[in-house]
Amino acid sequence: MIPGRSLRLTALANFPLIREGDDLARLILAGLDAGGLRLEDGDILILAQKIVSKSEGRLVDLKGVEPSVRARAIAEKSQKDPRFVEMVLRESREVLRVRPGLLVVEHRLGFICANAGVDRSNIGAEDGEGERVLLLPEDPDASCRSLRSRMKEEAGAEVGVVINDSHGRAWRNGIVGVAIGVAGLPALEDLRGRMDLYDYQLQITQVAAADELASAASLLMGQADEALPVVHARGFPYPMRESTMVELIRPRDQDAFR
Amino acid sequence: MIPGRSLRLTALANFPLIREGDDLARLILAGLDAGGLRLEDGDILILAQKIVSKSEGRLVDLKGVEPSVRARAIAEKSQKDPRFVEMVLRESREVLRVRPGLLVVEHRLGFICANAGVDRSNIGAEDGEGERVLLLPEDPDASCRSLRSRMKEEAGAEVGVVINDSHGRAWRNGIVGVAIGVAGLPALEDLRGRMDLYDYQLQITQVAAADELASAASLLMGQADEALPVVHARGFPYPMRESTMVELIRPRDQDAFR
Repeated sequence: MIPGRSLRLTALANFPLIREGDDLARLILAGLDAGGLRLEDGDILILAQKIVSKSEGRLVDLKGVEPSVRARAIAEKSQKDPRFVEMVLRESREVLRVRPGLLVVEHRLGFICANAGVDRSNIGAEDGEGERVLLLPEDPDASCRSLRSRMKEEAGAEVGVVINDSHGRAWRNGIVGVAIGVAGLPALEDLRGRMDLYDYQLQITQVAAADELASAASLLMGQADEALPVVHARGFPYPMRESTMVELIRPRDQDAFR
Repeated sequence: MIPGRSLRLTALANFPLIREGDDLARLILAGLDAGGLRLEDGDILILAQKIVSKSEGRLVDLKGVEPSVRARAIAEKSQKDPRFVEMVLRESREVLRVRPGLLVVEHRLGFICANAGVDRSNIGAEDGEGERVLLLPEDPDASCRSLRSRMKEEAGAEVGVVINDSHGRAWRNGIVGVAIGVAGLPALEDLRGRMDLYDYQLQITQVAAADELASAASLLMGQADEALPVVHARGFPYPMRESTMVELIRPRDQDAFR
């Protein structure tokens, strides 16, 4: 007999707008408490990138940014603000594609994504004056580990933490949530060597479990005027363990599509 | 005030192994009933591709397959069975990449994926003798629409239906669930023109909602010896409407990575 199982995702209500220096752990604990959620071992918290970046002070005012010659050239080709492109380049290792409206790069952390995750949306007056953009967290895995430790100290629970962001895909329309930082859960669940229902050895089947969870949480977060940046998940089906984003980044020598 | 919201996914327990001609709608209704789940308007059912394909008789015995010259050449380069490659080619419009162990194609329905979704796993004695492979459903959107109609007739509920499969990604390790068929829910939710939290107009933000849901369900389905091929979802946050997979397939003239 195969028992059923369930996964419940809950977005925390009334989460406040975040500024540099805010204590996310404390705010999340308060939000869980207000929602009647008590953390248990194996629960996972998924945080929208923007609140982690804001709490870590990753806002940059474009007014102080001087675009390089290279940034100006790419800005013209991509029809983007040269100062914005300059910040994208500073966050990137390599530019993959430039087309009008499109700038796909390898972020310094290895993610292939548009604009190196640099974002002009959802930045408001509490973030200060000027034309500000938001960069990804300096070290998202470290941010996750830190929050995981705080949850252990303050709620006594061994939880997983994921930071998610929304990425486009090469061959599909629309963005989906993906993990950009993990702690305390398997980023990649390796089922190789396991048998299928008929004792036929599975061929591929490394499952990007943290990405699947990031997508699930993204559904609840919303993108526009109703953003809910923290999601609590209960019922993640794989054994918890330490991992890092390195598991999810395809090594360059295995990349057939660059 | 932004209220919280939640999404609950439940995999049906004890779902039987499926053979050609099985009535999936009846089996799903029985599974929901056994799990104490009563369908409501706005619920979504996510079905693993393999059970839809099996019920529709999409098994092919490789013993009767004669590989073409082209299939033999690609088989050598990809180190795959020439008869398997022949079936992949018959299901494909174009071959994108061939490397040892890798064969990425455009499926006749427009999906860019490994092996055109042709699968040797999870095929058993009840599927007949021989070396069988399983093809994707002939028309997954139509399969979804048909199941959606049956649920309306037999349970009186307007539900959404998604068929999911697991795809690799160009730049990330591991597979994730994606939609290959939809009915009754937005495949792509278009938020363009909506404002962010600070009345700044959102730039991109077409959300591949059906793919995010397919990933969420995939987490529960399992890949190996504990497959749970039907997931019930309640709490999908976007307004329900008719749609098709065409919304999710990037048109070739917008493909920067072929």
